[in-house]
Amino acid sequence: MPPVPHTAVADLLGALAYAELTAFDRLAEDARMAPTLTGRASLARMAAAEIAHHVQLSARLTELGVDPAAAMAPFVSALDTFHESTRPSTWLEGLVKAYVGDGLATDFYREIAGFLPEPDRSLVLDVLADTGHADFAVREVRAAIAADRKVAGRLALWGRRLVGEAMTRSQAVIAEHDRLADLIVSGTGDLSGIGRLIERITDAHTERMKALGLNP
Amino acid sequence: MPPVPHTAVADLLGALAYAELTAFDRLAEDARMAPTLTGRASLARMAAAEIAHHVQLSARLTELGVDPAAAMAPFVSALDTFHESTRPSTWLEGLVKAYVGDGLATDFYREIAGFLPEPDRSLVLDVLADTGHADFAVREVRAAIAADRKVAGRLALWGRRLVGEAMTRSQAVIAEHDRLADLIVSGTGDLSGIGRLIERITDAHTERMKALGLNP
Repeated sequence: MPPVPHTAVADLLGALAYAELTAFDRLAEDARMAPTLTGRASLARMAAAEIAHHVQLSARLTELGVDPAAAMAPFVSALDTFHESTRPSTWLEGLVKAYVGDGLATDFYREIAGFLPEPDRSLVLDVLADTGHADFAVREVRAAIAADRKVAGRLALWGRRLVGEAMTRSQAVIAEHDRLADLIVSGTGDLSGIGRLIERITDAHTERMKALGLNP
Repeated sequence: MPPVPHTAVADLLGALAYAELTAFDRLAEDARMAPTLTGRASLARMAAAEIAHHVQLSARLTELGVDPAAAMAPFVSALDTFHESTRPSTWLEGLVKAYVGDGLATDFYREIAGFLPEPDRSLVLDVLADTGHADFAVREVRAAIAADRKVAGRLALWGRRLVGEAMTRSQAVIAEHDRLADLIVSGTGDLSGIGRLIERITDAHTERMKALGLNP
């Protein structure tokens, strides 16, 4: 693999830093829909964990001589549009989005992290570690389906809409950012490498839908 | 001073735990009004610090054999009403509320902490430590006033409205919670002690308004 230019690293860290900031926003917003104080506090704690990651990524960008705000800026519009177009209207939709949407994003960033040199590879893998959200979401969603089978159909549709939007938006982001595109192409090796990457991400998505008790 | 009953301690920790959770909510909401990504990230970090405090208080409640959600529940309505009735409509109003409102609340809790036995006294004083919000708010508000003198008058009115609402709501909470009222009365010694407590809190409020460049 050719060496990865610093600018591609900064792009990825910037995208991820902004993703953590929007994840914080979204979790904080969803927390307010929580049916119990315990659920609300749980989501608020997860939001705080995202900010801790954001802080780590910003610190690394500063270390690389890149202004974190400048590194995040190119990704604001795409990520905001994704969140605006997939705004959950219920507590359960929020949990499915957090689990399925974050799962997709995490898989994607983890794949790309594999192409990065150290210490950035470890940093990215570290901030992608689950903050306890997954177990919490799975538990709550399964319990809701057990209580009322009808919710499964609606949530399955919602999950499929999320993956569609996520794929569309991320392709648009990569198409607009040559350095990220180069990183992925040179990292995967060739078109069939990209195909396998997409397959791995899609398979993991299917597993997550099943874990929630939803038809993928 | 007579020994403080565990129940009064649980009341205070419960009120404070819920206050931290609402502070988190409010900061997260205000973060979205930030004019810059750097300002938004700063507020999000402060929100995360409030949650760290909430976690400490919840852990202590659990240690005392009290369910954190049950300890918070009696204070939900009063604190929510306060925040609903003082919802900032601009970024600057949000900062003034954070600085002036949190300052009032902090002074009040700090006074009561003085009546608590250890380790709860230290815990409360510890979670009340400033999370960097104060300096940030003062800097931003003073800069805005320097750029446009007109905002000072509007923000001063806003500050006075905040203190009025805060006083009304906290009196109502104390009136409804006998154990908290007993704690304050026995802690201050007598009515003139309560008078001096209110005077200290009011003086500190005046200082904060001046620090922002606002007419108290």
